[in-house]
Amino acid sequence: MDARIAISMGDAAGIGPEIIAKGFREGALEGGFVVGDLAVMRRAARLAGAAAVAPIDDPRDTAQLPPRCIPVLQPPGLPPDLVGLEVGRVHAACGAAAALCIREAARWVTTARACALVTAPIHKEALAAAGEPFPGHTEMLQSLAGGVPVRMMLANEELRTVLVSIHLSLREAIDAVSFDAVLQTLRIAHSAAQHWGLATPRIAVAGLNPHAGEGGLFGSEEASIIAPAVLAARSDGIDASGPYAPDTVFMRARRGEFDIVIAMYHDQGLIPVKYLGVEQGVNVTLGLPFVRTSPDHGTAFDIAGTGRADPSSLVSAFRMAQRLGTR
Amino acid sequence: MDARIAISMGDAAGIGPEIIAKGFREGALEGGFVVGDLAVMRRAARLAGAAAVAPIDDPRDTAQLPPRCIPVLQPPGLPPDLVGLEVGRVHAACGAAAALCIREAARWVTTARACALVTAPIHKEALAAAGEPFPGHTEMLQSLAGGVPVRMMLANEELRTVLVSIHLSLREAIDAVSFDAVLQTLRIAHSAAQHWGLATPRIAVAGLNPHAGEGGLFGSEEASIIAPAVLAARSDGIDASGPYAPDTVFMRARRGEFDIVIAMYHDQGLIPVKYLGVEQGVNVTLGLPFVRTSPDHGTAFDIAGTGRADPSSLVSAFRMAQRLGTR
Repeated sequence: MDARIAISMGDAAGIGPEIIAKGFREGALEGGFVVGDLAVMRRAARLAGAAAVAPIDDPRDTAQLPPRCIPVLQPPGLPPDLVGLEVGRVHAACGAAAALCIREAARWVTTARACALVTAPIHKEALAAAGEPFPGHTEMLQSLAGGVPVRMMLANEELRTVLVSIHLSLREAIDAVSFDAVLQTLRIAHSAAQHWGLATPRIAVAGLNPHAGEGGLFGSEEASIIAPAVLAARSDGIDASGPYAPDTVFMRARRGEFDIVIAMYHDQGLIPVKYLGVEQGVNVTLGLPFVRTSPDHGTAFDIAGTGRADPSSLVSAFRMAQRLGTR
Repeated sequence: MDARIAISMGDAAGIGPEIIAKGFREGALEGGFVVGDLAVMRRAARLAGAAAVAPIDDPRDTAQLPPRCIPVLQPPGLPPDLVGLEVGRVHAACGAAAALCIREAARWVTTARACALVTAPIHKEALAAAGEPFPGHTEMLQSLAGGVPVRMMLANEELRTVLVSIHLSLREAIDAVSFDAVLQTLRIAHSAAQHWGLATPRIAVAGLNPHAGEGGLFGSEEASIIAPAVLAARSDGIDASGPYAPDTVFMRARRGEFDIVIAMYHDQGLIPVKYLGVEQGVNVTLGLPFVRTSPDHGTAFDIAGTGRADPSSLVSAFRMAQRLGTR
């Protein structure tokens, strides 16, 4: 497999192109190539004070380019004149272009012409305006991969958390905590971590309720659902433990006691990962047949086009993709 | 008001007496006096390698004692021979003694003979075994204060979070998020912070659902309950804002944007406060007519009697009590 990493441009009206250009300017995205619109990336390169954009037709062309140059592979069929659209706003054309770039970038990865996919932020409304049936990257990539079960992992240098569910109300998230969902999350996390090279990842499972239910006093899901799922995973040979009190399990993982924490709902896992700063957070989709990472922020329409966007999270996502994709 | 601080001994079979003795040994509890059992505190002083225990009858007697000496005020009516009971276990006598010490310590504070109350950990089961009708300190002190509405605040050097509810299952906690409960939490937090000297505390209110409901997509409580409560608080002159996305509001407060975050449920607030370590976390009961703080951990029966208990959180609680109680 080629060790190059495909970077999808994201929404042309958001900060995606800018943070990509800044990443190349810093020399932090060497080995990556952009799947995107040439004119949009040229504008972003000017905004970022980055080196020239170099059109390529194949990821391997990247090898011939001077350093810090931005290799851009423009897929056929992109909507025309994306740079004519006002930045910081929802445009159907930007949604359509973003979706096309994701599909094209994924194709390079699934055909082993790239080893991982890093996706710059897209905008849900633009995607919907373009008639895309998917609310976001995860669902689109899951569908491209034939509907395999996937889970979202949020990770930074000190904590990895895998979520049983993501974009549900808290009430719905409680209902989504089932034996099957917890066990599947454990299996996906275990298998992914083995791919990264952890032979026996130590996986902690958070409880759902305060104090993990305090022996049934504050809720029964720990005893009726989570503990049985942990037991089932253990009988599969997975080093799973818990359910642990949610208010200390993340701190314990941060100190090195566990490699991964399974979180029962979105904010349980995301509050600790983001607490020390969102810049270093990376979103990794587990369960796909390829590595996909993304920065842990959105299109930031409020600062798009101003040159103030911070490429740190994208750079972290790229590094994570390198680490995971080249194993 | 006397500036001395009453420290209730906690459960005699737990780590409470030991961490108190260690705190005095380190010179970190100067100005405090213990309401507890003399024999238990003598044993703890030996375990901790601390200076002698000095029996006192009145908090003012403390002034005559040599430094690092542990002033202990033994209330009448304590069960006999508490030191004869095995440490690390639930004993009704220890529960009864702990409750008596809390009531006595609170009496010194409510009669202005002490300026604040710091409570060492008690054990819920021991309390129940002694026939006490209260599950914990908060409820007991609330009752002593005539049933005033109270809220739990967890704080460390960088974050203060006040909880709408505490010991409920997550499902029940969602039901407890009402207009009245959120508004009352805001009022209690605002009033307490003004007592500490913040003229116009900046209070952020977390949402309940991921992304604070994402405009109704992931839950409606933000629009129907939380936002109206924030609005009502603002019309009271409270600098309240939100509801904010739960996964970033604590990070923003840590960076200085807000003085206090109102958390909708136990783990939402406690995960970030404890993430960097439980040692510095302090529990403060807001709404009482006096200052009460406690360490953010329990009786730790597993290490009681071994000499390994860490007094850091108790010392933090004492410092917080000094800061808040002497204003």
